[in-house]
Amino acid sequence: MKAINFEERSKKIQDKITENEIDLFLITPSINFGYLFRGFFSLSERLICGMIFPNNHPQLIAPSFEKERMQIETTFDDVITWQEDENPYEVLRNSIEKKVNTIALESSTPFDVYVRLKKQFPETKFVNGGKYVKELRSIKNDAEMERMRKAAECTSKGIVNTLDIIKEGQSEIEALKIVQGQMSSLSNEPGWAIVQFDENSAIPHGHPSKKKLKKDSIVLIDAGTTCEHYFADITVTSVFGKASKEFLEIYSIVEEANQAALDTSKEGIPAENVDFAARTVIEKAGYGKYFTHRLGHGLGLEVHEDPYIVKGNKNPLVNGNVHTDEPGIYIPNKFGVRIEDDVLISNKGERLVTFDRNLWE
Amino acid sequence: MKAINFEERSKKIQDKITENEIDLFLITPSINFGYLFRGFFSLSERLICGMIFPNNHPQLIAPSFEKERMQIETTFDDVITWQEDENPYEVLRNSIEKKVNTIALESSTPFDVYVRLKKQFPETKFVNGGKYVKELRSIKNDAEMERMRKAAECTSKGIVNTLDIIKEGQSEIEALKIVQGQMSSLSNEPGWAIVQFDENSAIPHGHPSKKKLKKDSIVLIDAGTTCEHYFADITVTSVFGKASKEFLEIYSIVEEANQAALDTSKEGIPAENVDFAARTVIEKAGYGKYFTHRLGHGLGLEVHEDPYIVKGNKNPLVNGNVHTDEPGIYIPNKFGVRIEDDVLISNKGERLVTFDRNLWE
Repeated sequence: MKAINFEERSKKIQDKITENEIDLFLITPSINFGYLFRGFFSLSERLICGMIFPNNHPQLIAPSFEKERMQIETTFDDVITWQEDENPYEVLRNSIEKKVNTIALESSTPFDVYVRLKKQFPETKFVNGGKYVKELRSIKNDAEMERMRKAAECTSKGIVNTLDIIKEGQSEIEALKIVQGQMSSLSNEPGWAIVQFDENSAIPHGHPSKKKLKKDSIVLIDAGTTCEHYFADITVTSVFGKASKEFLEIYSIVEEANQAALDTSKEGIPAENVDFAARTVIEKAGYGKYFTHRLGHGLGLEVHEDPYIVKGNKNPLVNGNVHTDEPGIYIPNKFGVRIEDDVLISNKGERLVTFDRNLWE
Repeated sequence: MKAINFEERSKKIQDKITENEIDLFLITPSINFGYLFRGFFSLSERLICGMIFPNNHPQLIAPSFEKERMQIETTFDDVITWQEDENPYEVLRNSIEKKVNTIALESSTPFDVYVRLKKQFPETKFVNGGKYVKELRSIKNDAEMERMRKAAECTSKGIVNTLDIIKEGQSEIEALKIVQGQMSSLSNEPGWAIVQFDENSAIPHGHPSKKKLKKDSIVLIDAGTTCEHYFADITVTSVFGKASKEFLEIYSIVEEANQAALDTSKEGIPAENVDFAARTVIEKAGYGKYFTHRLGHGLGLEVHEDPYIVKGNKNPLVNGNVHTDEPGIYIPNKFGVRIEDDVLISNKGERLVTFDRNLWE
């Protein structure tokens, strides 16, 4: 696979902060940190913080005993360390010689980290710099698309395999483990999933339960595995046996809505229009009030990221955006149908992976 | 097991904010949210926020389509909802009738959430409220101790079983999966682990690699499983075969340091004194520069939490604190020895679990 060019990413952010008159961009461990500096890990109570300057190379603040690990796991050569009994915020403050009028913080920076930084830089204005990274992340290049296609393939195959091997009497929780196992055996990376049977499928974001699979049960699997941290997010709704007339009727409406969204999604179109396209189909069929969530969201290093495909988001889609197309109809206490694809904007919208979804008798 | 009393926790925080003249405490999904309101999940891009008032019952802000799930997974009856095309921060603002002079935020609240809240409450002072919850969390009651003892038992047994069944030629990564499986089969909950062989054991916080187990290899396993979200954190350093004289010499120094810390740890003692007790043993033996990290940290719903057992923390330990006691000596490119116990302060310090650690020939 094509290598990820971290230096290019970091350089683009440096240009952004220069342009916006930001003197220092502080990035604590987070998805954005991993995107810029390769290392994906969580911030613990010990401060680790990447620093991007307009006119200097990036530096990292890290605990002294973590220096070696940081040099292996991240792109930083220049690591400023602090000892266990030092105040890392003071160390950070003292490492900076120039006056800083404006500091940008990564958007997920914990509030208490901000409070401690503010104490060190009382006169400095703090702004949200996460948006610059998110903007960059929302446009995928070829190296990223390669990873996302692989993740989508492993996910769709894992779901289809699962529908093939699950058995009557198995619970949602058991089926969840099967789909995670199937996806991971293909991708060699972890995976997440939601599995819902029958009336449970009518609850978006519900948790798998001990509910058991029966003959002719409706099965909704919403799942994703990763490829080098890039996510897929695919939902298949199927029937374990024979599909009822009511299911087929609703299924075909959702299918049509999913296709209408795909046909609308392209460069230059306001994101909300893609939602409207699907919603119009469902509303015209009389099920508008059962489509209770937005049409979709961007996808990449996070399962939910920019661009959001929702009423109110008038930002035009651009080439390189990847978003989900996931209309649904949820009839409370009966069943729900959701069909979810991952769509790449490349002039027009195109599905990252296609496969046969009609798996019932 | 004894039930957790969430109402009592919430009431104690209500008292704290009243005492500190805070008009509103906002708590987004986080460990502290789970501690107060039972539901453990992450904050997504859709705002979910618990609100504690000095003179009213707690309320939750959540997306409309998540209301049912929230009422199942959290302690909230009163849920204020927002629609997909609404600004949840405006909904939150409009739900509050009284003037708010001071808002406390949970400490992990993302910076961009703070920025959006500040836009809605431009005249309001924002303070860090996480400390009130952390203070409460640092003192475990009987119901919590029951869970922590169980987690510690499952962890120590899982590690000992692993040392019993690993085989020559297996990699650190393979051994890691074994220890996670062993712990989880006992606890029915997930577990984390670090497994390091030979010279890798000299890198604290290193990641498991493909390095293989050999005859007489040194094996360091640092692991923990949970019991209803409460963590254990135990390290065993052992030898897969015969222990060398050098290993035994260093092991006995670390053992002595671990015991010295335990003997020092009790109600009323400044936390840093416990670190000093262990460090003095190691320094006297001439290995001071190889003990590169603090002695330990509090343990509970997080693997690292208050109280930190580190130079500079002069806060006295109190009954109900649980902290790790984990001195180590790390000889670069050779090997490391760490012995880690979980210690409860109950007048004097007591180990949550004891077991035979000398598993070499």
